[in-house]
Amino acid sequence: MKTFKTLAFCLATGLVIASSCGNSNKVTAVSAQDAVLSNIAARKSVRAFLDTEVTEEQMNTLLRAAMAAPSGHDVRPWSFIVLRDKAQFDGIFGRENHNWRIFQKSPAIVVICADTTVAVKARKDPDEVASRRPNGTWRDDMGACTQNFLLAAEAMGLGAVWTACYPYPDRMDPVRKALELPDNVVPYAVVPVGYPSAQFEPKDKWDPDRIHHGKW
Amino acid sequence: MKTFKTLAFCLATGLVIASSCGNSNKVTAVSAQDAVLSNIAARKSVRAFLDTEVTEEQMNTLLRAAMAAPSGHDVRPWSFIVLRDKAQFDGIFGRENHNWRIFQKSPAIVVICADTTVAVKARKDPDEVASRRPNGTWRDDMGACTQNFLLAAEAMGLGAVWTACYPYPDRMDPVRKALELPDNVVPYAVVPVGYPSAQFEPKDKWDPDRIHHGKW
Repeated sequence: MKTFKTLAFCLATGLVIASSCGNSNKVTAVSAQDAVLSNIAARKSVRAFLDTEVTEEQMNTLLRAAMAAPSGHDVRPWSFIVLRDKAQFDGIFGRENHNWRIFQKSPAIVVICADTTVAVKARKDPDEVASRRPNGTWRDDMGACTQNFLLAAEAMGLGAVWTACYPYPDRMDPVRKALELPDNVVPYAVVPVGYPSAQFEPKDKWDPDRIHHGKW
Repeated sequence: MKTFKTLAFCLATGLVIASSCGNSNKVTAVSAQDAVLSNIAARKSVRAFLDTEVTEEQMNTLLRAAMAAPSGHDVRPWSFIVLRDKAQFDGIFGRENHNWRIFQKSPAIVVICADTTVAVKARKDPDEVASRRPNGTWRDDMGACTQNFLLAAEAMGLGAVWTACYPYPDRMDPVRKALELPDNVVPYAVVPVGYPSAQFEPKDKWDPDRIHHGKW
């Protein structure tokens, strides 16, 4: 009866007993709203990983989240190249890349790519691309897409770090070449992902001075 | 005893009874992980709102989420201008703005701004800005920041829509002038926020053709 009262209280107050799934041992009281807000606050850059594999199912869950991002005129400029073969990493991200040590110890790396153009379909055949025009907002869309990926990783007990590739030619050129990207596609971000091998802490970046009312 | 067994089962399986808070009446069984992933999938553009006010506490929760975004070299280029006075809206977003009708019926609008520079501190006095150098990744950071805002709104039962301001001079110029933005700050996105006045549906954008393995 006491347990029943506790459960009824939880439901009545909108609080619930939530167990985060498998990957961590935390059992905490949260609502769905709190789970989302806590996850946004808890997301941090993870730069060291266990050898444990990220399964294809987990990877698809991450990429499904990434693809749920909004995009200007719903263009969806994203594509993803999943790399799992460490022997391949050296040829793509050489030792001159300052993130080389992080990449070397990652069980998986996702190269998040962006089509910088919008395909203009042929009038006679909508399956045919007649030409390509520039897309004014692909970079904004890609920021949202990458953030979705990172938030999903955090929620799944995984860790990841967004390393910028675009707009740096010295980082983009070897990736474009090694991964055989089409001319209209840029490697936007290189995101290693796996189970964190250490405790990484999120930053508290709340700053009320960044908020203005009515004007600057 | 039966209730106790049910509760024990929920905890053991990692499932929980979660009640989303106040703003909606749904009671669903989710884990914290599922809450986050479902929220990412459920986020949609909301373009029509009830008159109900967004409280200052709610606004701060949204902005706290926005400020939790990652940024290149942790520069945190964001600032936020909260607008609540509808009489002010016309002067900022004139009828020539194709989103004017949406803005007019929003209880609040947040102009998400970006500092496109990095402040270089004076050697003698770290409180003084000696000069400003360009920031190569502010636009990516702002995409992540805006997405955090939208995801938090979704979780809180609110709705919002990301309308691009940058890089369009005809949209940016009146906003810069009316809100008296410093020269190094651009109005990045204009985001109306409030309680949805209708049912808006998220799109299912999952597309396995966007995923490549090993190379393009």
